[in-house]
Amino acid sequence: MADQKIYQASTTAPVNIAVVKYWGKRDPKLNLPQLLNLSNSLQADLRTHTTAACSASFPASDSLLLNSSPQDVTGARTQACFRELRSLRAALEASDSSLPELSTLPLKIVSENNFPTAAGLASSAAGFAALVRAIANLYELSSSPTELSRIARQGSGSACRSLFGGYVAWQMGTKDDGSDSLAVEVAPASHWPTMRALILVASAKQKKVSSTSGMQTTVATSELFQRRAEIVVPKHMKEMEKAIKEKDFEAFGRVTMMESNSFHSTCSDTFPPIRYMNDVSWAAVGVVEDINRKAGKIVAAYTFDAGPNAVIYYEEANTDIVAGVVKGALGSVSGWESRDIKPQASDVLDAADVEVLNKGITRVILTQVGEGPIRTEESLI
Amino acid sequence: MADQKIYQASTTAPVNIAVVKYWGKRDPKLNLPQLLNLSNSLQADLRTHTTAACSASFPASDSLLLNSSPQDVTGARTQACFRELRSLRAALEASDSSLPELSTLPLKIVSENNFPTAAGLASSAAGFAALVRAIANLYELSSSPTELSRIARQGSGSACRSLFGGYVAWQMGTKDDGSDSLAVEVAPASHWPTMRALILVASAKQKKVSSTSGMQTTVATSELFQRRAEIVVPKHMKEMEKAIKEKDFEAFGRVTMMESNSFHSTCSDTFPPIRYMNDVSWAAVGVVEDINRKAGKIVAAYTFDAGPNAVIYYEEANTDIVAGVVKGALGSVSGWESRDIKPQASDVLDAADVEVLNKGITRVILTQVGEGPIRTEESLI
Repeated sequence: MADQKIYQASTTAPVNIAVVKYWGKRDPKLNLPQLLNLSNSLQADLRTHTTAACSASFPASDSLLLNSSPQDVTGARTQACFRELRSLRAALEASDSSLPELSTLPLKIVSENNFPTAAGLASSAAGFAALVRAIANLYELSSSPTELSRIARQGSGSACRSLFGGYVAWQMGTKDDGSDSLAVEVAPASHWPTMRALILVASAKQKKVSSTSGMQTTVATSELFQRRAEIVVPKHMKEMEKAIKEKDFEAFGRVTMMESNSFHSTCSDTFPPIRYMNDVSWAAVGVVEDINRKAGKIVAAYTFDAGPNAVIYYEEANTDIVAGVVKGALGSVSGWESRDIKPQASDVLDAADVEVLNKGITRVILTQVGEGPIRTEESLI
Repeated sequence: MADQKIYQASTTAPVNIAVVKYWGKRDPKLNLPQLLNLSNSLQADLRTHTTAACSASFPASDSLLLNSSPQDVTGARTQACFRELRSLRAALEASDSSLPELSTLPLKIVSENNFPTAAGLASSAAGFAALVRAIANLYELSSSPTELSRIARQGSGSACRSLFGGYVAWQMGTKDDGSDSLAVEVAPASHWPTMRALILVASAKQKKVSSTSGMQTTVATSELFQRRAEIVVPKHMKEMEKAIKEKDFEAFGRVTMMESNSFHSTCSDTFPPIRYMNDVSWAAVGVVEDINRKAGKIVAAYTFDAGPNAVIYYEEANTDIVAGVVKGALGSVSGWESRDIKPQASDVLDAADVEVLNKGITRVILTQVGEGPIRTEESLI
C-alpha cells in the first residue's frame, strides 16, 4: 500500500512594485525582459499565503485553489513551474534513496491573498513567488532565491522579484534559454527601513489590454521604446541603485517619477495606444507635485504600474507632510485605520485634484518596503 | 497739414491643426522649431478676420483690438511683426517717392474670431497670420506667403502655417537668424477636397503650462524627445507628405494618430510631466478606434494639440460611418446644425466612452481643410 501521508509546507510572498519598469519581452514563452529592472517588495500586509501539499491520497491531477476558487493549472506557465520544481526534487531523490518520492505525487496548492484581487496590485507576482517558494519548501530544495527566480519568472515575469524582500534587481541576461535572467538583491529592507508607501487604489474597470500582448505591441510599434530600452532604463537603473545604496530620497524620488513617466509614455506611444493612467492617476501626480513644491524638495514620489493606482513613496520622517496631508484631503476614504497617521491641513493641494481623488479613490493602503517570503507553519489545508 | 486719410486693408486667416506636431524651440526669441512640421489649415468657418489701418489722424501709439478688447502690443513678438513689416514698407517707399509714407504712421488693428476663444483652438496662429497678412495688404507688399511666414513666425510659431491654405509644411531651417525657417505648401486644399474634420471641443480648465515654457522643459528633460526629434518626426513627415500626395487616407490616418500619440508621449515624459489629454480625450480615442474596427480599416483619425480637444479627420464619403455615428451618440451636444449630418446607430461605440464624451464635450465643430487667408473688403473699422 502506498504512503498516504500528506506532506506540506507553507509560505507567504509579498507583492512588489517596480520603480524601474519591466516592459517588452525578449521571448514571450520564457518571459525574458528586454529591460533591466529594479523593484522593491512591499511589506507582508500585501501578501499571498500559500500552502503546497502532495500526497498519494490526493486526486491524480495537480490542483490550485486561490481565495477558495479552483484555478486552471494546465496552462504552460504553471506547468513549467511544476515541471522545473519536480525535476529538482527528482534529482535530489535520485541522489538519496532514503527520501520519499514526492516528485511523483500530485500537488495540491492552496493560496490566499490578503488584499483585494480587483485592486490591480500585481497579484500574479506574489502568487507565483509563493507557489514556487512553497513547493521548494515542500521538496526541501536547497536552491537559492536567485535560482528559484529563474523558475518563478516562467510563471509570471515579475514573480521572480517577489522571492526577495527589500530592493531587488532583475537582470536581463543574454543567454537564449533565459538561464541567466535572474533576480538579485540590491539591498535588504533593513538597509533603508524608513521607506514608506501610500497606495491610492483607484476604481478601475477591467483593463482592456493584457500585459503580455501590450508589451509585444509596444516593442513592435513604439518608436520611442527603443530609446527607453537602450538609454533610459540603463541610466535609471544605475541612478536608482546609487540612490538606494546612498539612501538618497531626492534622487530615488526623482528617478522613480521620471521612470514611471517614461514607462507610461512608451505605453501611450504604442499603436494603438495603451493607457493605464486616468484622470484620477493624474490628480495623484498633481498632489505629489504640490506636496514637493510646498516642501521645497522631493519628499514624495509617485509611480504607476499597469493600472491607475498611485503608489506614493516617502520617508517615515515625512509622514505628516506626505501621508498626513493626503489623509487631510482624503480622510473619508477607507484604509487609513491600519496605521496612526495624523491628518494635516491639505490647503497646499489643488482643490480640483482633491475633488477628483475623492470621487475616484476607493481605498488607501499604507505599507512599506519589507521582507521577502516568510516560511510559516500556518497551513491552509 | 499732414494727410489725414485712413488707409486700410482687411483679410481673414484660418486656424490650422498640425498633424505632425511642432514642439521644442531651437531659439525661444526667434520661435525656431527643432522639428519639421506639417499642418493643414481648416476652412474659414474657423478664422480670424482682421482689418489693418494706418493714419496720421490716429493716436500716436499702435493699437490692437481683439473681439472688442484692447490688447497689449508692446510685447516683443507683436513689436517684431510691426517692425519687420514697416521695414519692408519703408524700403518700398525709398524706391518709389510717389508712395505715401505709411511706414511712419501709427497702426490700428481690429480683429475678430468667429470661434470661441476659450475653446483652445490655437487662436494665436490665426491671429498673427491675419495681422501680418492684413498689414502686408495695407502696405501693398509683394512678399510671398513664404516670405511673410518668416515674419508671422516671430509672432506665434504656428502662425506661419496659417498664411497658407491646404497642406503646409514648416521647415526647420538651419541658419542662426532663422531666415530659412519657413512655411511651404505641400498641396493646395483643392488637391484633396474631400478631407473633413470633426472637432470635439472639451470643457477645459485653463492649461497649467504655457506652450513656450512647456516646450523648453520637454527639450531639457524628456529622454525620449531626442528620438522623436531625430527619428520619429522626420519619418512621419516623409510618410505624411507621401500620404497627402497620394490621397491615401489610411496612411494619412495612421501617421496622424501615431504622431499625435508620439507628441503627447514626449509631453508626459517631460519632468514634471505635461499632460494635455484627459479622460474625455481618451474616450474620443476609443470612439475612433471603435469606428475603425467596425469599418475594418482606418476611416477616422484623431489628433490632439496642446489641449484636450479631439480633431477627427475623415473623408466625405465616410461621413455617415464617422460623423454620423458620433452624432448618433452625441446628438444633444451643440454644433451639429452647421452641416447636414444624418445621425447613425452608435451601438458600435463603447458605452463608457460615450458617457464620458456626453459629460465632457461642450460642442462640436464641423469643418474641413480649406483655403488660406482671403482678402476681403469687409472692414472692421
